[in-house]
Amino acid sequence: MTGLVTLGEAMVVVSANEPGPLAPGRIASLSFAGAEATVAIGVSRLGHPAAWIGKVGADAAGAMIVAGLRAEGVDVSRVRTEPALATGLMLRERRTADRTRSAYYRKRLAGSCLGPENVDDELISASRLLHVTGITPALSDSARRAVRHAVVVAREAGVTVSLDVNYRSLLWSRNDAAAELGFLVRHADLVFAGPQEAQLLVGDAPPEQTARALTALGPRQAIVKLGAAGALVAVDGDVLAQPAVPVTVVDPIGAGDAFVAGYLAAHLDGAPPAERLLTAATCGSFAVSVHGDWEGLPRQGELPLLTGDDVIR
Amino acid sequence: MTGLVTLGEAMVVVSANEPGPLAPGRIASLSFAGAEATVAIGVSRLGHPAAWIGKVGADAAGAMIVAGLRAEGVDVSRVRTEPALATGLMLRERRTADRTRSAYYRKRLAGSCLGPENVDDELISASRLLHVTGITPALSDSARRAVRHAVVVAREAGVTVSLDVNYRSLLWSRNDAAAELGFLVRHADLVFAGPQEAQLLVGDAPPEQTARALTALGPRQAIVKLGAAGALVAVDGDVLAQPAVPVTVVDPIGAGDAFVAGYLAAHLDGAPPAERLLTAATCGSFAVSVHGDWEGLPRQGELPLLTGDDVIR
Amino acid sequence: MTGLVTLGEAMVVVSANEPGPLAPGRIASLSFAGAEATVAIGVSRLGHPAAWIGKVGADAAGAMIVAGLRAEGVDVSRVRTEPALATGLMLRERRTADRTRSAYYRKRLAGSCLGPENVDDELISASRLLHVTGITPALSDSARRAVRHAVVVAREAGVTVSLDVNYRSLLWSRNDAAAELGFLVRHADLVFAGPQEAQLLVGDAPPEQTARALTALGPRQAIVKLGAAGALVAVDGDVLAQPAVPVTVVDPIGAGDAFVAGYLAAHLDGAPPAERLLTAATCGSFAVSVHGDWEGLPRQGELPLLTGDDVIR
Amino acid sequence: MTGLVTLGEAMVVVSANEPGPLAPGRIASLSFAGAEATVAIGVSRLGHPAAWIGKVGADAAGAMIVAGLRAEGVDVSRVRTEPALATGLMLRERRTADRTRSAYYRKRLAGSCLGPENVDDELISASRLLHVTGITPALSDSARRAVRHAVVVAREAGVTVSLDVNYRSLLWSRNDAAAELGFLVRHADLVFAGPQEAQLLVGDAPPEQTARALTALGPRQAIVKLGAAGALVAVDGDVLAQPAVPVTVVDPIGAGDAFVAGYLAAHLDGAPPAERLLTAATCGSFAVSVHGDWEGLPRQGELPLLTGDDVIR
Amino acid sequence: MTGLVTLGEAMVVVSANEPGPLAPGRIASLSFAGAEATVAIGVSRLGHPAAWIGKVGADAAGAMIVAGLRAEGVDVSRVRTEPALATGLMLRERRTADRTRSAYYRKRLAGSCLGPENVDDELISASRLLHVTGITPALSDSARRAVRHAVVVAREAGVTVSLDVNYRSLLWSRNDAAAELGFLVRHADLVFAGPQEAQLLVGDAPPEQTARALTALGPRQAIVKLGAAGALVAVDGDVLAQPAVPVTVVDPIGAGDAFVAGYLAAHLDGAPPAERLLTAATCGSFAVSVHGDWEGLPRQGELPLLTGDDVIR
Amino acid sequence: MTGLVTLGEAMVVVSANEPGPLAPGRIASLSFAGAEATVAIGVSRLGHPAAWIGKVGADAAGAMIVAGLRAEGVDVSRVRTEPALATGLMLRERRTADRTRSAYYRKRLAGSCLGPENVDDELISASRLLHVTGITPALSDSARRAVRHAVVVAREAGVTVSLDVNYRSLLWSRNDAAAELGFLVRHADLVFAGPQEAQLLVGDAPPEQTARALTALGPRQAIVKLGAAGALVAVDGDVLAQPAVPVTVVDPIGAGDAFVAGYLAAHLDGAPPAERLLTAATCGSFAVSVHGDWEGLPRQGELPLLTGDDVIR
Repeated sequence: MTGLVTLGEAMVVVSANEPGPLAPGRIASLSFAGAEATVAIGVSRLGHPAAWIGKVGADAAGAMIVAGLRAEGVDVSRVRTEPALATGLMLRERRTADRTRSAYYRKRLAGSCLGPENVDDELISASRLLHVTGITPALSDSARRAVRHAVVVAREAGVTVSLDVNYRSLLWSRNDAAAELGFLVRHADLVFAGPQEAQLLVGDAPPEQTARALTALGPRQAIVKLGAAGALVAVDGDVLAQPAVPVTVVDPIGAGDAFVAGYLAAHLDGAPPAERLLTAATCGSFAVSVHGDWEGLPRQGELPLLTGDDVIR
Repeated sequence: MTGLVTLGEAMVVVSANEPGPLAPGRIASLSFAGAEATVAIGVSRLGHPAAWIGKVGADAAGAMIVAGLRAEGVDVSRVRTEPALATGLMLRERRTADRTRSAYYRKRLAGSCLGPENVDDELISASRLLHVTGITPALSDSARRAVRHAVVVAREAGVTVSLDVNYRSLLWSRNDAAAELGFLVRHADLVFAGPQEAQLLVGDAPPEQTARALTALGPRQAIVKLGAAGALVAVDGDVLAQPAVPVTVVDPIGAGDAFVAGYLAAHLDGAPPAERLLTAATCGSFAVSVHGDWEGLPRQGELPLLTGDDVIR
Repeated sequence: MTGLVTLGEAMVVVSANEPGPLAPGRIASLSFAGAEATVAIGVSRLGHPAAWIGKVGADAAGAMIVAGLRAEGVDVSRVRTEPALATGLMLRERRTADRTRSAYYRKRLAGSCLGPENVDDELISASRLLHVTGITPALSDSARRAVRHAVVVAREAGVTVSLDVNYRSLLWSRNDAAAELGFLVRHADLVFAGPQEAQLLVGDAPPEQTARALTALGPRQAIVKLGAAGALVAVDGDVLAQPAVPVTVVDPIGAGDAFVAGYLAAHLDGAPPAERLLTAATCGSFAVSVHGDWEGLPRQGELPLLTGDDVIR
Repeated sequence: MTGLVTLGEAMVVVSANEPGPLAPGRIASLSFAGAEATVAIGVSRLGHPAAWIGKVGADAAGAMIVAGLRAEGVDVSRVRTEPALATGLMLRERRTADRTRSAYYRKRLAGSCLGPENVDDELISASRLLHVTGITPALSDSARRAVRHAVVVAREAGVTVSLDVNYRSLLWSRNDAAAELGFLVRHADLVFAGPQEAQLLVGDAPPEQTARALTALGPRQAIVKLGAAGALVAVDGDVLAQPAVPVTVVDPIGAGDAFVAGYLAAHLDGAPPAERLLTAATCGSFAVSVHGDWEGLPRQGELPLLTGDDVIR
Repeated sequence: MTGLVTLGEAMVVVSANEPGPLAPGRIASLSFAGAEATVAIGVSRLGHPAAWIGKVGADAAGAMIVAGLRAEGVDVSRVRTEPALATGLMLRERRTADRTRSAYYRKRLAGSCLGPENVDDELISASRLLHVTGITPALSDSARRAVRHAVVVAREAGVTVSLDVNYRSLLWSRNDAAAELGFLVRHADLVFAGPQEAQLLVGDAPPEQTARALTALGPRQAIVKLGAAGALVAVDGDVLAQPAVPVTVVDPIGAGDAFVAGYLAAHLDGAPPAERLLTAATCGSFAVSVHGDWEGLPRQGELPLLTGDDVIR
Repeated sequence: MTGLVTLGEAMVVVSANEPGPLAPGRIASLSFAGAEATVAIGVSRLGHPAAWIGKVGADAAGAMIVAGLRAEGVDVSRVRTEPALATGLMLRERRTADRTRSAYYRKRLAGSCLGPENVDDELISASRLLHVTGITPALSDSARRAVRHAVVVAREAGVTVSLDVNYRSLLWSRNDAAAELGFLVRHADLVFAGPQEAQLLVGDAPPEQTARALTALGPRQAIVKLGAAGALVAVDGDVLAQPAVPVTVVDPIGAGDAFVAGYLAAHLDGAPPAERLLTAATCGSFAVSVHGDWEGLPRQGELPLLTGDDVIR
């Protein structure tokens, strides 16, 4: 039985190695990224079978993404290769040591063209958890329908639904986003959001109230991610807080998805909310202490490296 | 007075440093490319004022291209920055030491949207040479019209027109290409083509006959590029041949454009055909002995490095 | 149904990037290697399910090997992780551009301790092809028994047995090797050997005679690998020759295993001997045109890159 | 009309990539540096035409510097190439993560031989701002005369004169420096100095008093650079302070020149003193968040990246 | 007269350049390491003749270690090359920016096989200082006897004996370690220990008491290393403290050995305890501000770079 | 007893890693070079004690050179550190894959200021071989006197004198060179020259005649280096030829000095002329198969790697 199923877009990432404006002769590293793919990798590394549904092009970039996910133990048997479309790409400039700027090549490309026909109902129905984000529905109409379809299938099958709000203002209007995310949150059992993202759904409020307000929309668990300030969860009427796990930050990208992966993996472990938050925060710290979106995610048994008293040599 | 004006598309190039399939963690180098931009750089490096007309996005990639051309002394005052479109990108896999595969992100992006309105008639009329290629008209309708417009303006002003056939089968059909390239070749004074490209215009024949046949279409000079076998030119009823200048090949990309740059620079120098061919072949060898499309092009005074008897230490 | 099952040792490879003696501050690349693992990757890349049986340590090196094989689609479900032993390691100095020297850290480590108890009889019996090499039996007594056991199981189940002689003079004496390899060749359907390796089994003779002599020991197909001179196969009384496929050599390591992978994949495709040899030679050329033992192996559809007339741009 | 004209020396920089003593096999990056060149780049990047006057050798290093400045839009039409002299060079060891040591190869080389004959009086007279530093007059007698000449020409033409004291104790004695810098400061409208540099001119005092004392020597605006403690300006009898803009420091070199560039660009914008200081401090922070002296300088529109509330993704 | 003699094991270090799990294609740097070798290098760099006794294999790794020590001026005339054994190796994964994990390949290899027969009694008797650590006796019986032998020889010759406790729990049991280290500390004149290491010998106590308790076992000077909290020394009944010298940490490995090297070099200089501690702390900070175990150690005249008021440009 | 003493200049080398014009952001490698230093390293690596006499600055570059020579076992006890002068530097551009251009920073710097007072007469008198080149006398008057002095001392002490003509046309006039080299060759026992260098001394002639003509000037052995065409020696009236040892060329620099080192090491071994030539040619091939001037030189026991039948794996 698959622990987690997720669906979305994954893109090649071309990421300048050193801070500074792009210039001829500069060196960049290749990898791939996608919020849902990162969550699938994180959950798989922590020991739960995870599957990712998405589309890639019939090109070197697509082959790299599929092999990369497979290396991490993610089930890619439902990934479709689109012969006529290129795999999406993101070009990341590290403008300064702290500021990253990305150009996206994704519109009308393979990943954005995911549709309901790519969703495997049986796979979802036979899994324990479906995870979706607010990025995929913003990519195209068909992608929006794919996410809705997956959520509806999961609900009907009694599969837990997890939603990371992940509002991307460049992809759609505030109104469109509020409408679609409203639908999704009402069908979700767990919801993750940053304070500004949550505002879209429940208005402006302090984090604790925000978390409670999110549960009022339907989800049993609402997790508010506060970055360096940690996170809190509203569950069963209680609100628990968790500070960030201290670590030297190498690359802030991917922290939020790593957090979600940790939370969901602990959820699949049957861990109580406080432990879920701790695992989540630890995964976030692992992610930012390594370059790349998912490369730093912890494997089973590695969590104590950052939280334990282990003397490491 | 500008020596050479050219117009076309320039893209960011992300080029894997080592041979092998793309994979997470692999290193790539950033640069930019574009057949006409390479010709402008080559002509400028050899001492003739050169201008490039094109469009880039209002992004880091576009800024890199403009700065890169400016560094080489190319006049970029007519480059337009398109606020709403991204700069095109090419992802190059060196699949083996000898085989490169590229994925293009260019459709509907800034460079492809060049139009007649971007062409500066006065600049062209006041220049000595207009150079166009068969790539730009294949990018979009507006780009096709831009090239036609530039050629017509040049002809009317008595400016020499140079055409590199550069047939790209992925961008348009053989029929569309034959029609448009037929128009351009009939308006050109110089035409450059590989044997297979020439076939599109004059049918299959040995190189020498091909060159003569091309002149029969209108151009006074027809140059057939034969790669490692050198090149030949038909001019004034004569055909001259030039073997390739021997060199260790590091990266075969850009050889053809470098060849054209060398030929046109020698043309602007007033050199006779045999010397034009030699300069052209030398530029081609410089280009392939350095990574990148244009980085290896020779500066004034450097040509004897490959052709002369100079002892270099 | 698994196409190919193989068993052996895989080690981390630390390979100096540039030629020259090892020195502080020099840069090296990490990867992994193992003759049988390379064959499994090659067969998997060409579209046939492949499984690799072996042991790794419970360390970062072991995790890297397992993830690396999984990325390539190789079934690693029978790989055992040995908690008390380290994964083997090979330190490669490129002493000159053409000469590599390796130090091995493998004795009594995880990979060498493979034993018959690690062999999954059912997996073998349900596969189409078992591939073994002369390296694994030379590693330890238990490894020798594991290989014998696998071969016997395959024979009993009617599974085709492939043997690459791969004689390593540093690991065992000529006499020990001749005895064990004699046993294996008598139980094999296909045998691969270099001319010097074959000498161990059939004495000194020209390649064609060598190939015929090998078939006289039992195998229906005997393939003699001649490096830059290509290869030949004796099958059904005929001997066919195949020259090497020309390519720029970047790293000669892994050519032999790539050759075997290509041959076996074509065998699984049901291709005739001449096509098997061509696929084998092409795979060998792919391997040497990329750094690393297996990184350059072709994926389905890539073979024409080196053999076809494809214009690649 | 040129916004800023400046004159000075520019050298190739060979900068060890990693901290530690120089050793065979270590990797270094190539770039170029020069206080005035950095200011010209910074002003040009922020949108004001800037010209740099200097001398380079007829070598690869000189060509690199000229192309590098041209890439940044700096007018290099007055740069002279000295056929008989080499371009200067600086070898930078990063002895520890925080401590850089440089060896200079500049004496009697091209850049040091700048003379009054290289100064284009018309260019200066037609510009809005002349910027000079205390480094150039310390290089040679002719360079000293060149700077004096430029300052006199500017004063006579009513062009604003800016001076960065930039006292380099290795290049001249305290007495010589005090005399020459005294002359320059008396002819300057703006003066920039660190606290220790200012001491040379106005004795020891707290920063605020120092700034006031500098204006008493003639300049209408005196800016004291305090590094991590920010900066303050005395202007029209007022003293304004500006803290440093917080940023992760990657390479502290170039901060002072970036600060000056920002101040002068804002001055050319007609911005009030407080805004000039903020732009200056922001430019300083951009510079130190990227490797190299000038590479990190902000382009127009980028200032809010460090100061604004922009959510960057 | 040799200032310092030491004996121990040195291994090749393969150290991943970037944080993250090991993966194919990742880049690593080669160097060598060994606690005693680092001390010898540190003492030599600060101007005192130092000799290192140890064994290496007859391989590229062994040649690298010997050349590396020789480069630093360490006397390697007593290093033995063992033809039949490989040089040890350590594979370092930087799992996160702050956490390093190492796999060791050392058991039964050249360095571990050091024995009393490799100890040159005359060299020790003619030196001013013998330095040993708690690592070497944990490697093998013969290594244990070698260390004991060296200590006894030194005592008899009136040579000062220094011991760095350096307890490695992976190499031997707490009981074995306590017994052997107890013997060594009773024969030592100087002893260095971290708080947890000291516990093995004198039980749990605050640092100051720990230092005093260590002197009660025999040594005249006992230095407790407290990492970021600095260090303290008990000598002649007094306890002196020294905070850490502030520095940007690039790589924490090697700090302890650098500290010992600084202390012993200052001891050989005849410096008083407070100055020894300051030199020790400064060496520790040099070491951590550069990658590698010993690469950052200061040379004579460099100490003021971190402690002095030198303006460095 | 020292096998070989030599004297000369050594410089830091900054060598661009990739072919192409120098540009900001390009990567270079640091090393050091000097014809005589390379010979000393080569002879030392092949097992004969070698000493190098020269001057370096009191800077990081000087320290690097001394440590680098010491690592290779070269006796550096007579190297003088000049507190007031910088160490020389060479900036190498690889303009194309095959063409290197260097800028030298050496005039009036430490290495050029070597003088007779730096020559240790006793060291020379007690050695078996003195090696000098035609580069050092071209650096300065004092360097010229130093070389003459060394040669005279050697002759008087009956020490064999070896001269590599090494004519550098940029450093002195043909006439000056002919005069000084004439003096040196008349005092030499062995002389090495390329065909064009030999012309300076014996006029134009085919290689064999050139070799004989050189012996007519005094030397008992005259070796003519013919690059890719091998070399020949005239000795005792005979002329022996040696083809080049085939190898993949990575970096042609240093081949000549490696050749000399091999010849002299074999001479010190007492090998006959044919074996000396073979060792020389093999050393030349080792040198060009590795980047850098001396890095690739063979160590004892490594010669068969290129010449023997060793199967290396």
